[in-house]
Amino acid sequence: VFKVVESLKTFFEPKSVAIIGASRTPGKAGYGVMKNLLDNEYAGSIYPVNPNVDEVLGYKAYASVKDLPEAPDVAIIIIPASATVEAVRECAEKGVKAVVIASGGFAEVDEYGARLQKEIVRIAGSSGMRVIGPNTSGIISTPSKFTSTFFPLGKIRRGTVAYIAQTGNFATHTMKWILTSEYYGVSRVIGLGNKCDVDDADALEYLGEDPETRVICMYLEGFKNGRRLLEVASKVSKKKPIIALKAGYTTAGMRATLSHTASLASHNSIVDAAFKQAGIVRVQYYTDLINAAKALAFQPLPSGNRVAILAPSGAMGVIAADACETSGLKVANLSEQTLRHLQSISPNWIKVGNPIDIWAAVQIQGLEQGYRLGMEAALNDENVDAVISILMLTSEHASVNLEFIQELCEQHPHKPVLISITGDRELFDKAKVFLESRSIPVYLPVEDACRVLAIMYKCKQAMIRRGLRPY
Amino acid sequence: VFKVVESLKTFFEPKSVAIIGASRTPGKAGYGVMKNLLDNEYAGSIYPVNPNVDEVLGYKAYASVKDLPEAPDVAIIIIPASATVEAVRECAEKGVKAVVIASGGFAEVDEYGARLQKEIVRIAGSSGMRVIGPNTSGIISTPSKFTSTFFPLGKIRRGTVAYIAQTGNFATHTMKWILTSEYYGVSRVIGLGNKCDVDDADALEYLGEDPETRVICMYLEGFKNGRRLLEVASKVSKKKPIIALKAGYTTAGMRATLSHTASLASHNSIVDAAFKQAGIVRVQYYTDLINAAKALAFQPLPSGNRVAILAPSGAMGVIAADACETSGLKVANLSEQTLRHLQSISPNWIKVGNPIDIWAAVQIQGLEQGYRLGMEAALNDENVDAVISILMLTSEHASVNLEFIQELCEQHPHKPVLISITGDRELFDKAKVFLESRSIPVYLPVEDACRVLAIMYKCKQAMIRRGLRPY
Repeated sequence: VFKVVESLKTFFEPKSVAIIGASRTPGKAGYGVMKNLLDNEYAGSIYPVNPNVDEVLGYKAYASVKDLPEAPDVAIIIIPASATVEAVRECAEKGVKAVVIASGGFAEVDEYGARLQKEIVRIAGSSGMRVIGPNTSGIISTPSKFTSTFFPLGKIRRGTVAYIAQTGNFATHTMKWILTSEYYGVSRVIGLGNKCDVDDADALEYLGEDPETRVICMYLEGFKNGRRLLEVASKVSKKKPIIALKAGYTTAGMRATLSHTASLASHNSIVDAAFKQAGIVRVQYYTDLINAAKALAFQPLPSGNRVAILAPSGAMGVIAADACETSGLKVANLSEQTLRHLQSISPNWIKVGNPIDIWAAVQIQGLEQGYRLGMEAALNDENVDAVISILMLTSEHASVNLEFIQELCEQHPHKPVLISITGDRELFDKAKVFLESRSIPVYLPVEDACRVLAIMYKCKQAMIRRGLRPY
Repeated sequence: VFKVVESLKTFFEPKSVAIIGASRTPGKAGYGVMKNLLDNEYAGSIYPVNPNVDEVLGYKAYASVKDLPEAPDVAIIIIPASATVEAVRECAEKGVKAVVIASGGFAEVDEYGARLQKEIVRIAGSSGMRVIGPNTSGIISTPSKFTSTFFPLGKIRRGTVAYIAQTGNFATHTMKWILTSEYYGVSRVIGLGNKCDVDDADALEYLGEDPETRVICMYLEGFKNGRRLLEVASKVSKKKPIIALKAGYTTAGMRATLSHTASLASHNSIVDAAFKQAGIVRVQYYTDLINAAKALAFQPLPSGNRVAILAPSGAMGVIAADACETSGLKVANLSEQTLRHLQSISPNWIKVGNPIDIWAAVQIQGLEQGYRLGMEAALNDENVDAVISILMLTSEHASVNLEFIQELCEQHPHKPVLISITGDRELFDKAKVFLESRSIPVYLPVEDACRVLAIMYKCKQAMIRRGLRPY
């Protein structure tokens, strides 16, 4: 165990890196890697390897790995598949500890590619060198300001969420999405690609020990060593929430994974049972890996599944109630005291219950005070484990101060609060920045908030099943 | 039948309107209605009714409906429940044909309110006056530039989508959402409220005959006269797609509808069967009523369920394949000819299939040409009924011209095209405006696009079942 974790650390805390296939041409992958390292202010030594040029982006270039002044901790290989085997051999001879192979054209394509991949495994195995890939844009490690991805990302936000992905999807377009549309940060990203060596179990084991990582999200298409993955997960899920999307769960999806990453099929119900036993919470949508990640990073896990819902219209309350119950949550039975208090802040033409139709109170109290009093009453109720509050924001409320939500969260550190917003799109965007920079997760459709809270509850249940004592 | 449609027409094509409870105070509901009428440039006569003022927003005010110079086509009542009965009586005596009652405090609250509501029904029934509400912000009719809603909406975009909603939710915050975040328009919106008179069946019958309406979306919590609703739907669904969210389908949701609109419970599986028989396509999420509406308004219905998927990464392809198959679509078996063509535009390190991993081709052809050739090949394939194309947009492609998608749609008028976008959020926003103003629907998570296409396919199937001849 220790050896796996140590050998993976090299990938994420490298003091030096060689980019085999570095390029001076914008748009080329070998340029993209260099650019990302510079944009993220990677502080280690950078060695571009390219026999045709003297320097790349101001760094002296070398004709071959053999010529480098030292054995770099990590080598990133981005040259055609056919040339990759030789590059791997040179890395092994030089004493490189960790290699990320971005190139495609291996087992995912044809027999020839599969043979090349086998040869890489043989070389790496005999030298003790670890390999991530091939067929992946690789890794991100924000604490080390390091990445192997060629996809133009700019500065990557540091945080506590880690991603393990079948391929480079979380080190490329999805990360771009997260960086431009969300406000949470990542600790490590591991795009496994064809998993010729480092696999999901290794990655999970490393992240389990990683002090920078609090939440682990996985996108998987297949398992290389399912048994070991589950063994590792059983240990890690005691300490950290693990959520996973197992894609390729339909016939068409399975066929697609075959040509994508040569993953083998696995029975859906077996995956369900195995995940459950290992404490991995299975999610259904790709966006859950973003939506749930931020709530898990921002908010405490709920002690139970009893939710108070604040809605600005009866219809939104009904929808939220349906969505909560469908996903395994309970609409809380508010205490008599809470109901009396809520009724006292509302006009008498409304009969208050849960969902709490808060707009009536807002008409008397104003938006800020109405929601504050309503959410406070809900959070103070011992029958309530979590609050989902749907704000309605229109130009009338453009200047409303939402700081009270942060205050309420601080006063109730064990009860998660999730916000949904309806009304004016521009105000949604503004409120999302404001609240998420204060660690309060915001969702557009309330159904997303309900599903995310259900995932948080399942993470808590998984921890309890794996031995965590409920408080 | 004719009588119902004619009597409802008055609500949507009024030549004059009285606002009973009109107010000069911004923030008050009686002000909001006036403001919305002015913002939408309603061209009929406007009669504010308020005994305490001389004029409202430049319009002469009257102390009572009795004093009006003519019987207005529509009266909007926004005064406390207790005063509403008298106002309704005066409307009946004056000869008003149609009344919208916005006020709450009736059957949804208590026995007293229920008695008031009964009295309103009695008065209206004996005079032949139709009533929408109470407990609703009412209606929108863009062809007549008319609305009864008090919620600040500004100018409402005209289009072909109609909403029937249990309450005012689609005439208030959801409409604000659609107006600020989407690019399709609405024809009519009918918020039914307590349905003391006009109900979902009446509304559906009217919309079925309405030349302005091509797509009908319903948000329902309960049924007043389920049998008639289904009878009407059976006829309308031959001509126009009807999608419906039946909320309150869980125990908690049902409880919430009780206090919201006093709706009675109905068995979920019975609703399923009845909807299916009547050609109503049931949807699960509130956002489906927005996401599917725009695709139904923008694009043709697919002839079958065989989808070609273009994805910028293998993972997104797998996710889309899973989402399609889960929702009842088939990932199309592309013809040999199409596969050969796709392979010829791609580098040889990728093996092309469906989902089509188009990013490989993009690296050779450029983004515009890669997607154009890929989508064209898919649309030309007789084994393909619809195309879902996931664009990856990053700053590198900020200047890409997406007009080719419109051209492809025009060349294939019987095959729907739905777009999903990953990458840079700002470019998503830009592409969405560009494409949706050209009637090409855009979705953020590809899973939404897949679900929407499945809804479109179900609408087509419903029409075929109801007697439409497949072409």
